[in-house]
Amino acid sequence: MAEMVKVGAHEDASRTILSWLKQYHKDLAKQAVAVRVGDEFLDLTAPLPVGQEIEVISAGDPLGLEILRHSTAHLMAQAVIRLFPGAKPAIGPSIEQGFYYDFATDRPFTEEDLAAIEAEMKKLAKQNLTVEREELERADCIARYREMGNAFKTEILEEIPQPTVTVYRQGEFFDLCRGPHVPSTGRLGAFKLLSVAGAYWRGDEKRPMLSRIYGTAFPTQEELDAFLTMREEAKRRDHRRLGRELGLFLNSPEVGAGLPLWLPKGATVRYALETFLRTELVRRGYQPVYTPHIGKLDLYRTSGHYPYYKDDQFPPITFGDEEGEEEGYLLKPMNCPHHIQIYKSEMRSYRDLPLRMAEFGTVYRFEQSGELGGLTRVRGFTQDDAHLFLTPEQLDVEFKATVDLILFVLRTLGLSDYRVRVSLRDPNSDKYVGDPENWDQAQRAILQAVQDLGMEYTVAEGEAAFYGPKLDFLVRDSIGREWQLGTVQVDYNLPQRFELEYIGEDGHAHRPVMIHRAPFGSLERFFGLLIEHFAGAFPVWLAPVQAVVIPISERHHEYARTVAATLRAFMARVEVDERSETMRYKIREAQLQKVPYMLVVGDKEAEEQTVGVRSRTEGDLGAVPLAQFAEQLRAEAQIPTAG
Amino acid sequence: MAEMVKVGAHEDASRTILSWLKQYHKDLAKQAVAVRVGDEFLDLTAPLPVGQEIEVISAGDPLGLEILRHSTAHLMAQAVIRLFPGAKPAIGPSIEQGFYYDFATDRPFTEEDLAAIEAEMKKLAKQNLTVEREELERADCIARYREMGNAFKTEILEEIPQPTVTVYRQGEFFDLCRGPHVPSTGRLGAFKLLSVAGAYWRGDEKRPMLSRIYGTAFPTQEELDAFLTMREEAKRRDHRRLGRELGLFLNSPEVGAGLPLWLPKGATVRYALETFLRTELVRRGYQPVYTPHIGKLDLYRTSGHYPYYKDDQFPPITFGDEEGEEEGYLLKPMNCPHHIQIYKSEMRSYRDLPLRMAEFGTVYRFEQSGELGGLTRVRGFTQDDAHLFLTPEQLDVEFKATVDLILFVLRTLGLSDYRVRVSLRDPNSDKYVGDPENWDQAQRAILQAVQDLGMEYTVAEGEAAFYGPKLDFLVRDSIGREWQLGTVQVDYNLPQRFELEYIGEDGHAHRPVMIHRAPFGSLERFFGLLIEHFAGAFPVWLAPVQAVVIPISERHHEYARTVAATLRAFMARVEVDERSETMRYKIREAQLQKVPYMLVVGDKEAEEQTVGVRSRTEGDLGAVPLAQFAEQLRAEAQIPTAG
Repeated sequence: MAEMVKVGAHEDASRTILSWLKQYHKDLAKQAVAVRVGDEFLDLTAPLPVGQEIEVISAGDPLGLEILRHSTAHLMAQAVIRLFPGAKPAIGPSIEQGFYYDFATDRPFTEEDLAAIEAEMKKLAKQNLTVEREELERADCIARYREMGNAFKTEILEEIPQPTVTVYRQGEFFDLCRGPHVPSTGRLGAFKLLSVAGAYWRGDEKRPMLSRIYGTAFPTQEELDAFLTMREEAKRRDHRRLGRELGLFLNSPEVGAGLPLWLPKGATVRYALETFLRTELVRRGYQPVYTPHIGKLDLYRTSGHYPYYKDDQFPPITFGDEEGEEEGYLLKPMNCPHHIQIYKSEMRSYRDLPLRMAEFGTVYRFEQSGELGGLTRVRGFTQDDAHLFLTPEQLDVEFKATVDLILFVLRTLGLSDYRVRVSLRDPNSDKYVGDPENWDQAQRAILQAVQDLGMEYTVAEGEAAFYGPKLDFLVRDSIGREWQLGTVQVDYNLPQRFELEYIGEDGHAHRPVMIHRAPFGSLERFFGLLIEHFAGAFPVWLAPVQAVVIPISERHHEYARTVAATLRAFMARVEVDERSETMRYKIREAQLQKVPYMLVVGDKEAEEQTVGVRSRTEGDLGAVPLAQFAEQLRAEAQIPTAG
Repeated sequence: MAEMVKVGAHEDASRTILSWLKQYHKDLAKQAVAVRVGDEFLDLTAPLPVGQEIEVISAGDPLGLEILRHSTAHLMAQAVIRLFPGAKPAIGPSIEQGFYYDFATDRPFTEEDLAAIEAEMKKLAKQNLTVEREELERADCIARYREMGNAFKTEILEEIPQPTVTVYRQGEFFDLCRGPHVPSTGRLGAFKLLSVAGAYWRGDEKRPMLSRIYGTAFPTQEELDAFLTMREEAKRRDHRRLGRELGLFLNSPEVGAGLPLWLPKGATVRYALETFLRTELVRRGYQPVYTPHIGKLDLYRTSGHYPYYKDDQFPPITFGDEEGEEEGYLLKPMNCPHHIQIYKSEMRSYRDLPLRMAEFGTVYRFEQSGELGGLTRVRGFTQDDAHLFLTPEQLDVEFKATVDLILFVLRTLGLSDYRVRVSLRDPNSDKYVGDPENWDQAQRAILQAVQDLGMEYTVAEGEAAFYGPKLDFLVRDSIGREWQLGTVQVDYNLPQRFELEYIGEDGHAHRPVMIHRAPFGSLERFFGLLIEHFAGAFPVWLAPVQAVVIPISERHHEYARTVAATLRAFMARVEVDERSETMRYKIREAQLQKVPYMLVVGDKEAEEQTVGVRSRTEGDLGAVPLAQFAEQLRAEAQIPTAG
């Protein structure tokens, strides 16, 4: 956090902020990049605001980091012009993970140019050039840029209404800029140029194409290194890349954007996940159902999905009646209305409750825009959904039981680092349905439960589902990124809208409460997380191929098939690599395909009924009797249970 | 089959056909109900057509049965008028399973009236009244009916253009009718009145409501009895009724007609069926995939589903572009286009083939009309679908392997009584896509395979899928009814339309052949069959509840729970009936719910760690040690495999 300091009333108003800081706040002075006085940002080279409170912005603050990166963008522009004197800088802002600068050039920059530019930047930083702020008449500034043939800056300047503008100058370089900036280039050092791209001037495809250089900067080299490592790691784990390389899923433009198809290997992982959860659900007293993927429009009018959430859904399937869109079906955006129809199909008694209805239900929503190429934003996805119909007295116990289920699921998959968020309604928004009283009751129930469970939580107003508040699980993966996954929602509203009832012990009709919950959230998104979390190297029970048998030569093919048949007898997923490639090549390929075990078999193994076991993670484990390896694999391949 | 006999040229033309038959064809005379000479039907009481060939129609012939039933309808009308003199007969035809007659009456007939009418019919039959044909002036006939106050017959008569009409007379009763009829009421005997219903005169709801009596008749009492038994049996097994009573599935008007929801117990059976098939598919080298339930319209333009089969599908999901219905998505009517996209997502080599891609794929088709209340005609259903992509050389072996799979599935479920039908294209129809050469090739492949397999088959022209010929399995259930289930289709056309390729051993691109196949056909329809085949009493491995533990009194609840927990440890589906009802009541209810085992536990069982086993089919089996029963149940509950 930025630190507040007070400048004494008797200080010398002609000295700079920086020199004063160096005298009185030595440590702060080293980290500072600018200050804020009231609403105004000042450079460290500005005259000391005597008698005022000043907020010292350090490079480690979010705002300070932006300034550091913006100053690094200037440094890069200076280096570019030194190396490519004809380059005309256009704009160069800081962005979320760094900065960029766009240039008009004779030829676009290439990745190969980046090293030279970076070296030049280092040189300029070492020279520790003073960065000076200067006020200019706007007309003078225009004249200077015009002289340099820079039409971009001229265009920007012509749109500025004020008569004076500021530029920042370091050595021969100056740039039209509001600032603030670091006081000298020596403050810059931990930076890295990342990539080049083409970009239209002002994003308009009818205007010139400029050459953009992306970079980033951090207060320290350690932070930069950590960022670069993480960036590499994230690239290595990118589920879109791994999805392709490992044959896990497919996005087909012919089928439609955001409608992923699960390829055989991905489908195998999904089926293992489904079996894992299904088994656990049976143990916990859930009952399976299957429901269709469409429902009549009226069903969604009752639930409140239609027409209020029309824009988030695929358009309805309508029949040619005169009135237009009046009657038809909707691709289901949620499973609840269908499960509610099942609840309503019988008169229910308190003895029938809790009724826990589970389905891997595929739903369809219309994501309007953005990146639909992976599994994290999709238009069709399968929820590991369930709806619990409860007497009000059962809510507390059942809510906690669903939390326990989610924790069990996360733990089993090695996702133990999570935080929870209680998502409440924004009382000022009209996107929520139902009684305020119902909302209060549901919100109280969730808060009470998480407090009883001793969970740490944050509260987010306005993040509730439209029918009720919820508890969200935000899970950190193996490289520290946060994913929003499982959710538990408490709902007094849909039971009211659908007029649900049960006959209580008193013989009268009562209204049940509902819990909506999904431990994975969506199978697609969860699979995306798992791919990245495991970098594609799934644990044995999830691995699409658990072992590859590699015969050393053709005369070992027969024994290799015997090995495979032995393991397949208990449904192990085993392949035999009978291609006429070298053993080394086959091992490398199995490693790339992240197969947990490679079983090399030659004369000795065939004779002794063993397999030469090579583990993906532990390397060569030597010869193991086939029966013994089979037992080990069978145990590791077991679907985990809470026991 | 009706029999042809020749009447000698010198026979006496004044005798009746019946008397001639009695003399020369005694056995035929007994069974005969009418004859046909050329295109003309004659009564047995008609003058002998001397020198002609006559076709003697027996009661056992399809046509003869119609005549028998039509005559029985007359008999019923005579009886009705005797008992209810005010009743005015309207029309009374024979129908597929019997006959009916509509009457205008003071009050509608009830089921209770049927016995008296039937008794009166028996009496009339015993009197063996002669049935006589008579020609009348149309005007005379109108006058007679008008006199009797029968506006229905009058209306019919007024629409007849001919000046003369025929009536059939037996005793005091006569009826406007073209005939032919049996010669006397003594020929009628094996009949049964079945039900009453209301029906509008001429099916027009603006005209009077009449009272209809349904009945049936057969040549012999044995045939009638067999029919009635079968009818009772079919009623008892009706999957719509059992679906309700056993809580298997639901048709919800709110969700939509023909879109069944699988209730927990039905879903449990379905999941067992899916697991059974999935396990077998893995063993047979199939690979699972999951695909979305919609796809872009263009995908179906390429496949040929759209717009040609537009009327069989739900309307497309379209986006509001100016052109109207031009762009959008279709609820998938078949899974093939999606699986084909997966095939196309990689360059395939001959080494990758056969590629067998399997999915429990839910598809949607728009059944225009008719009875949508059960599982046999639905608008959304899940196919146990797979597509095999093959080199032409692999077709024969793979086709036979899919036949073997289907036979394994049918055998396992006790459906060994089947016949196969080769469904070919109708070369004169334009509903088929693709090259005639492709068709010939595919049709030859199927015919060759079934001949090689030594299967008996029939050929049905015009029953092929639109893209290729197929082999259909028509299966007889436990009461002899035939269901069309599994199918194997050979397809050279879609690979061409989608330009599928693989690189052959020669390094060149070749076109693969496809097999589409589904052993169950649709899970919904197959489930409907299974419910009726087993009359809801599923074998243990499929039973939604495999055992109910019945504690004798409240103090045995704890041991009952221990028993349940012991069995649930291996995922047995066990319930404990802790209601405060009598043991006898609970056993009766478990019987009605078709639970395979009832486990009665009291003091003795708790002390000795046994269960009092009562089998649904075998009755009381006495006390069995819990551990022993658990082992037995575990074995019986095992999903069957080909081993």
